Amino acid sequence: MTRIGLIGYGKAGQAVAGVLQDDPRFELCWIARKSGDTATAIDVPVTRLTREGFGDWLDRHPVDGIVDFSDAGAIHVYGEAVRQRDIMVVTAISGYPPESLDYIRDLGRDIRILSSPNITLGINFLLLAAKILRRIAPFADVEIVEQHFRDKPEVSGTARRIAEVLDVDGDHITSLRLGGIVGRHEVIFGFPYQTVRLIHDSIRREAFGTGAAFAIEQLSSCATGFYTLDSLLLQVIRDELQNEEKISAALAASLDSSSLRDRLPS
Amino acid sequence: MTRIGLIGYGKAGQAVAGVLQDDPRFELCWIARKSGDTATAIDVPVTRLTREGFGDWLDRHPVDGIVDFSDAGAIHVYGEAVRQRDIMVVTAISGYPPESLDYIRDLGRDIRILSSPNITLGINFLLLAAKILRRIAPFADVEIVEQHFRDKPEVSGTARRIAEVLDVDGDHITSLRLGGIVGRHEVIFGFPYQTVRLIHDSIRREAFGTGAAFAIEQLSSCATGFYTLDSLLLQVIRDELQNEEKISAALAASLDSSSLRDRLPS
Amino acid sequence: MTRIGLIGYGKAGQAVAGVLQDDPRFELCWIARKSGDTATAIDVPVTRLTREGFGDWLDRHPVDGIVDFSDAGAIHVYGEAVRQRDIMVVTAISGYPPESLDYIRDLGRDIRILSSPNITLGINFLLLAAKILRRIAPFADVEIVEQHFRDKPEVSGTARRIAEVLDVDGDHITSLRLGGIVGRHEVIFGFPYQTVRLIHDSIRREAFGTGAAFAIEQLSSCATGFYTLDSLLLQVIRDELQNEEKISAALAASLDSSSLRDRLPS
Amino acid sequence: MTRIGLIGYGKAGQAVAGVLQDDPRFELCWIARKSGDTATAIDVPVTRLTREGFGDWLDRHPVDGIVDFSDAGAIHVYGEAVRQRDIMVVTAISGYPPESLDYIRDLGRDIRILSSPNITLGINFLLLAAKILRRIAPFADVEIVEQHFRDKPEVSGTARRIAEVLDVDGDHITSLRLGGIVGRHEVIFGFPYQTVRLIHDSIRREAFGTGAAFAIEQLSSCATGFYTLDSLLLQVIRDELQNEEKISAALAASLDSSSLRDRLPS
Repeated sequence: MTRIGLIGYGKAGQAVAGVLQDDPRFELCWIARKSGDTATAIDVPVTRLTREGFGDWLDRHPVDGIVDFSDAGAIHVYGEAVRQRDIMVVTAISGYPPESLDYIRDLGRDIRILSSPNITLGINFLLLAAKILRRIAPFADVEIVEQHFRDKPEVSGTARRIAEVLDVDGDHITSLRLGGIVGRHEVIFGFPYQTVRLIHDSIRREAFGTGAAFAIEQLSSCATGFYTLDSLLLQVIRDELQNEEKISAALAASLDSSSLRDRLPS
Repeated sequence: MTRIGLIGYGKAGQAVAGVLQDDPRFELCWIARKSGDTATAIDVPVTRLTREGFGDWLDRHPVDGIVDFSDAGAIHVYGEAVRQRDIMVVTAISGYPPESLDYIRDLGRDIRILSSPNITLGINFLLLAAKILRRIAPFADVEIVEQHFRDKPEVSGTARRIAEVLDVDGDHITSLRLGGIVGRHEVIFGFPYQTVRLIHDSIRREAFGTGAAFAIEQLSSCATGFYTLDSLLLQVIRDELQNEEKISAALAASLDSSSLRDRLPS
Repeated sequence: MTRIGLIGYGKAGQAVAGVLQDDPRFELCWIARKSGDTATAIDVPVTRLTREGFGDWLDRHPVDGIVDFSDAGAIHVYGEAVRQRDIMVVTAISGYPPESLDYIRDLGRDIRILSSPNITLGINFLLLAAKILRRIAPFADVEIVEQHFRDKPEVSGTARRIAEVLDVDGDHITSLRLGGIVGRHEVIFGFPYQTVRLIHDSIRREAFGTGAAFAIEQLSSCATGFYTLDSLLLQVIRDELQNEEKISAALAASLDSSSLRDRLPS
Repeated sequence: MTRIGLIGYGKAGQAVAGVLQDDPRFELCWIARKSGDTATAIDVPVTRLTREGFGDWLDRHPVDGIVDFSDAGAIHVYGEAVRQRDIMVVTAISGYPPESLDYIRDLGRDIRILSSPNITLGINFLLLAAKILRRIAPFADVEIVEQHFRDKPEVSGTARRIAEVLDVDGDHITSLRLGGIVGRHEVIFGFPYQTVRLIHDSIRREAFGTGAAFAIEQLSSCATGFYTLDSLLLQVIRDELQNEEKISAALAASLDSSSLRDRLPS
């Protein structure tokens, strides 16, 4: 069972805590918050995240990995403590400034660390699949439609990321604001005689928990380094492709003998 | 310009002929039919496909590739003639018996030959993307829904192929028959807190033409061998992944120097 | 401001309480539960629902309407008390036995009472719109697809109700169980050359609150009687049609004069 | 069997001719074109539409109704001839200038005439259903998304008509241009806790034929007058509502007796 410490306990953090607690592969050992508030809905120790005290806390409450849903500043508070203790990190913060990203990559020299602003499996798959189709069919028209609740202020970061990855102009993003829609992203590929639609619907923010669990589990079999959820998915696919090649080779071998048989004089 | 001969001129063949004629990368040189009927809507030579006469026809009307939308028997009529002349073949026949598939694989020892029952780009992408997501998230529930025109008699072969590739039971295929829907395939992945939908809509059977054009173009840069549209797409992705790795490596290299700079005593 | 008492405080009741509290048209005055538990997340008086004490409670805590999200038995506990005090009732219970429905209709002789098993506006609109299209185009093929979370045990009652209203066989309902989908109902009409899809997505059970609020507001301008949410929507449409007729008549009148002008000798 | 004459034989006219020929309720008697071209794919008399000769043509080739898919000028050519012979007219021209519309309404004093720019049943149903939902739930957010083939130049007229009918601003129309999509219109209603989507997909322009057939059939049981497809649908619904009322009344009557029985002393 992989022991996890959770940093951050806002709306996303609370949702993730619930998912990790329910997953038999993980033991949620503690929660660290920037505020001193120790009231949580779940029964694990809670501490205040400070640079001075965090090393001690880790020694007294050892974990294999840390999941960070707090804010862009936290990594600088706990970074050196986890580096010294070789603890895996999954951070899902979206607003890191460049210097923080540099620091995170630097941590990747000593520990296994993954950073992804949207850590849901579905969105990261969508990004990857859209990229593949774009590469196969560069001539297809592409439109990105995102639908969110009425008060969401601006174009979703995920939609902008999809546009960037597909190298399409921001004009091809449509943002609709409608009632209480949690979050829908659709990428439409228009071919002359067919259409492909890739659609992701968010149901609840607990989806971040599933993504964090996937990330931690994958990291545990990775070498030291800096990762993104994209890159982990690519690795899964790369492994898959090698299997395919082995299968193809095996098929080819069996074909050789069967074809040979076909060719033998009867 | 790649010179193409088309075998078969039924509904699909006619649609494909139109697409190939409109594509500046290709020259549609002739059509061969099993029936003697030479009346076609387009102005290219038409011949009757026979084993005796086909070698001569090829010598008088040389092509780089052959596209076959006729029937399962034709490959045995023209196979040796194209083998001897090193002509590429793309065949989109869905009902080959095992011995024909063996023969086609055997042709792959001497020429470049691709065989795929559904040769649309979109469906083959869907198969691949669904396979990737299934591998990433084996715990997600999967349902396949296909919608076709009222009179389509049985479960679509494509839906059965998707189920096979995803290793889900046939119970998870739903077939709806509704008015004049040309063809829709949807694969739904249900996660605890999110949903991913992959949807392919056929507009017209000319989509086979786009797929055949893609296949011929890819084949022309391939080594001698037997291919499927799946395997060509995988190859495109494999190339893509190698690019990614090079980019990652380049990023890592640039990171090394920048991180180094960060660490220098100021 | 309409004063409301809420009966039942399970998952649906809690969601409805929140919606009513946030709606400036209503004052949520109290909650009555069958259990004695008085702990609620909101700050209103809570009582235990009993036949003996409920009349007194109403006299001390008068309301204009009651919203019932408890269970099929409650109506028999509070029925006579509300009949004597002429209080409106909206009940959203789905499993009433025939004798309870008879009793509810009988209450409709003395008070305004509405009973609907699914009290969301969207689903009731869907029922009505599907019925209209079915009437206009009886020749179209109809399929009903409902998608819900993995553990939902049987075909959704709403889907069965749609099938009943459209007079299509139960074979035309498809039930898919996928991850955490809250609830999606789709009615597809397949015409020879076009398709119409009516889709309802549930986001949260608070939707029941919006429906209950609509029902109470409509009831307050109705005569004594028994109503369903369907019948209230029909009434809205009937009023709308009369407006249309008046507009049409006005248009016709203006047309008469304009046409007359056209015909006058110039 | 209703005898029909078809005016106009462009792409839409040809599609409509096929549908009318296949429908056992109708006999397609002839086609009139503005050009003198008499070559058609179907075996019925073809004439050139001229003001002088058209009355004679009608006398020699009598019909019950005329379907017009030509252009905005034709009505002025054949209008008086059909007025004198009391022939029904269904015209599906989209660009009538005001004076032509006045003339058409004036024809409605003497004959039964229907004019609708988009004569598909599905789109006219969509308009009506969206209008009803807008009336029931004026607080819901509304977005209109139309998707068409890459080269369609401007916002679809149908989308603009939907916006007008729903009284929403043109900003709430999104036009996507993608490959070869024939035509999709979606109206999305966003509620706080639920979403309703009304979607119309065009498959082929033969859909105009189904609409014209519906219109002719309905007209034949109407009084002299000017109609739109909307107004015919409304009439169908109005009849439906009256049935509902009768059913409700019957139910209420049966209820009276059953309730009475319940109340009798046992």
